[in-house]
Amino acid sequence: MIRHTCLLALVLAGPAVAADPDTVAASLRDRAMAGSGAYALVESLTTEIGPRLAGTPDEARARIWAVAKLKALGFKNVRVEPFDMPVWVRGIETAAVLGANAQPLAVTALGRSGATPANGLEADVVRFATYADLEAAPAGSLAGKIAFIDHKMLRTMDGSSYGAFGAARRSGPSLAASKGAAAVLIRSLGTGYHRHPHTGGTNWAAGQTPIAAAALSLNDSDQLNRLLAKGPVRLRLVLTPRLAGTAQSGNVVGEVVGTDPGAGAVVIGGHLDSWDHGTGAVDDGAGVAITVAAAKLIMDHAPKPRRTVRVVLWGAEEPGLYGAAAYAAANPPGSIALAAESDFGGGRVTTLKSRVAPEALPLVKRMQALLAPLGITPSSDNSASGGPDVGPLAAKGVGTLTLQQDGTDYFDLHHTPDDTLDKIDAKLLDQNVAAYAVTTWIAATSNVSFARAAAATQP
Amino acid sequence: MIRHTCLLALVLAGPAVAADPDTVAASLRDRAMAGSGAYALVESLTTEIGPRLAGTPDEARARIWAVAKLKALGFKNVRVEPFDMPVWVRGIETAAVLGANAQPLAVTALGRSGATPANGLEADVVRFATYADLEAAPAGSLAGKIAFIDHKMLRTMDGSSYGAFGAARRSGPSLAASKGAAAVLIRSLGTGYHRHPHTGGTNWAAGQTPIAAAALSLNDSDQLNRLLAKGPVRLRLVLTPRLAGTAQSGNVVGEVVGTDPGAGAVVIGGHLDSWDHGTGAVDDGAGVAITVAAAKLIMDHAPKPRRTVRVVLWGAEEPGLYGAAAYAAANPPGSIALAAESDFGGGRVTTLKSRVAPEALPLVKRMQALLAPLGITPSSDNSASGGPDVGPLAAKGVGTLTLQQDGTDYFDLHHTPDDTLDKIDAKLLDQNVAAYAVTTWIAATSNVSFARAAAATQP
Repeated sequence: MIRHTCLLALVLAGPAVAADPDTVAASLRDRAMAGSGAYALVESLTTEIGPRLAGTPDEARARIWAVAKLKALGFKNVRVEPFDMPVWVRGIETAAVLGANAQPLAVTALGRSGATPANGLEADVVRFATYADLEAAPAGSLAGKIAFIDHKMLRTMDGSSYGAFGAARRSGPSLAASKGAAAVLIRSLGTGYHRHPHTGGTNWAAGQTPIAAAALSLNDSDQLNRLLAKGPVRLRLVLTPRLAGTAQSGNVVGEVVGTDPGAGAVVIGGHLDSWDHGTGAVDDGAGVAITVAAAKLIMDHAPKPRRTVRVVLWGAEEPGLYGAAAYAAANPPGSIALAAESDFGGGRVTTLKSRVAPEALPLVKRMQALLAPLGITPSSDNSASGGPDVGPLAAKGVGTLTLQQDGTDYFDLHHTPDDTLDKIDAKLLDQNVAAYAVTTWIAATSNVSFARAAAATQP
Repeated sequence: MIRHTCLLALVLAGPAVAADPDTVAASLRDRAMAGSGAYALVESLTTEIGPRLAGTPDEARARIWAVAKLKALGFKNVRVEPFDMPVWVRGIETAAVLGANAQPLAVTALGRSGATPANGLEADVVRFATYADLEAAPAGSLAGKIAFIDHKMLRTMDGSSYGAFGAARRSGPSLAASKGAAAVLIRSLGTGYHRHPHTGGTNWAAGQTPIAAAALSLNDSDQLNRLLAKGPVRLRLVLTPRLAGTAQSGNVVGEVVGTDPGAGAVVIGGHLDSWDHGTGAVDDGAGVAITVAAAKLIMDHAPKPRRTVRVVLWGAEEPGLYGAAAYAAANPPGSIALAAESDFGGGRVTTLKSRVAPEALPLVKRMQALLAPLGITPSSDNSASGGPDVGPLAAKGVGTLTLQQDGTDYFDLHHTPDDTLDKIDAKLLDQNVAAYAVTTWIAATSNVSFARAAAATQP
């Protein structure tokens, strides 16, 4: 009897009794805000590895870094899940106005751009103020021309302008090529006037031969507009990127193992690859650091959750979500309870949105209540994407959360040389970690199913 | 009698009677604030010419532009005053960390930098936190090393930090070379974290063979510090600038001719050349535009002044004040009544300072009173430089004014690719034009001598 009482007392003092999930969540949140360790992770990645273009030895070094870091932090089942992908690498890239107003312009090739001849091409510029104007151009009308797609993107807190106007970069070059263009220049899909062109992926139609496609900085886009206002502009463009065959990339995985292996994992992560110009601090060292730090916090300061918390550091996101495709192909949706990616920089989380089964919405409301002390606004939006790399999982019905960040400044930096560690604020990362720790813990400790039955039947 | 009265009435209605100098000055000031036309000038120069490195065909095109523009605006005695100068041009410039943390660093050669071998040099980095630390390094101690001069420059409104710490760039490379360094990297003499290294001139001792000397962006300087904290850093540096012989540059001059040819000219201007990375909008398209617009305002909206207002658009300022030296050599100090250069960007004028004979200080006070409605603070500082290109005149005793601008953001842009038209605010230029119109008009219409007798005896 005495013995029994003692055991009860031990239980009361131990984690099991402190394990009211909301109390634990609040404790994780407050610990994160007091210093989450996320900054040290992004500092280590961006300093020791620097840029890490998908499929290159730099990205391979980042996987080695990630495996070592996750093991050192105590994650279980740490592994690389490799996949093959086509590799594209940058070459020379210059542009110059010819004639009376001769001057260089700052350009950078878009991912998967074709090349000009090695000594460049010269052509006249035809401007399109919007993507719709390019769509309206008659077939063949761009023969021998450089199409300049000048579609402007405004600054928005949630990055919605990038989604809305991204076609200018993602499909503009292919569309211009289909109308005969010799090459394409786009106004950078970005918001910062610091004379950095913003790179980023572009897509070609099946069977289409890529033409040279580059971004101009905003400064240079305006300059080209002023020159075009004076008369015809002829440019010399040299772009020599190339496809470098097939190489291995991979997703790096580590787990905080839960008590119920059949309950499905809660997947959080960021992508490990970056474009080659910066050191990938906001895109997406921040996401890597935030999610690893959140899982580590649960590992160290919460009871073992029911569901496994799985960190997936995605490979080859930038050139076309190769890691996301490989992961979704290898993992049946039933094995994933919920997924969320942090891939919008290091700004403060402003809103929690979801895309889950209706019966899971009360749990989302509980998460939102726990996040209210961080100033995070609840949202009833239940159509959130969850982030680019969880898209293929979401398409199979896996529930997703979006911890929407303030990205007001994100597109000043995104895909430019200026994406470096100095743009990261440690305290803002801590707030992100707090939000991920709360949502991940609540999801991992619950019995609720997030899977969207209807979506699960979609292709 | 009637005839006489009519003449008197005409005189009363015309400029002669409105010609109380302070009333005219106030009118010029208010006209400028309503729209001075300066923005159109800097737009034209930076758009039509773009970068204009001293001694190159680009700077020659800028002179042609300036002559045409001054003539079109109605200036008299428009001319180029040519001089010869040694030309330095940029080549390839790359830097990369070698070994386990392999990654590129953003660098740009300093003006007059020597070259590495064509295939680059590899060497270990030795860091100096300050210029004084480099001074303290023993002779020969840098043999075979890359000296990294990490001297920090803080943001100041008046740019005083650039003057105070400029030795890191101006003489640091020479000093490191004298101690055996194979090459030099400096933390950019700038304040903007946008991953642009800041170029700028550096000086070599007589007889010294220049070594490769480049600036790192602030982002990359911090990165190099983090890497050095982990252990030794070895770099591969490729810099292939070269001296391209002697070429012609020139000062472009235009005048609003005064009534008294012997009274000495009031010289105002900016420098026409720029570094090669940006389009020279803040350095110094702004100064060109401000001073031309101010003189044009006097030409159009004031009675003919006693003294000639002479606009001098200086050539080859950046590589070493070649235009200033040529001008001072060709013009006896007695032919210049007063001189001022606008060469600190497009920010608001905050203060009027002088360096004039004591008997001219009451006139400076009158100028200050006329500038008070613009929010310009009077200063009793009578040791102002007047700007870099009027330095050789000041050294001969010519009086100078400094219309001190707010340069808080100037060193974010200075000598970088980001020095482009979008950084110019037309309304702030108007305020500068107002200040230059007032001070130039008051000086040109007065009998006061500004010459400093004591200084006139200096070498």
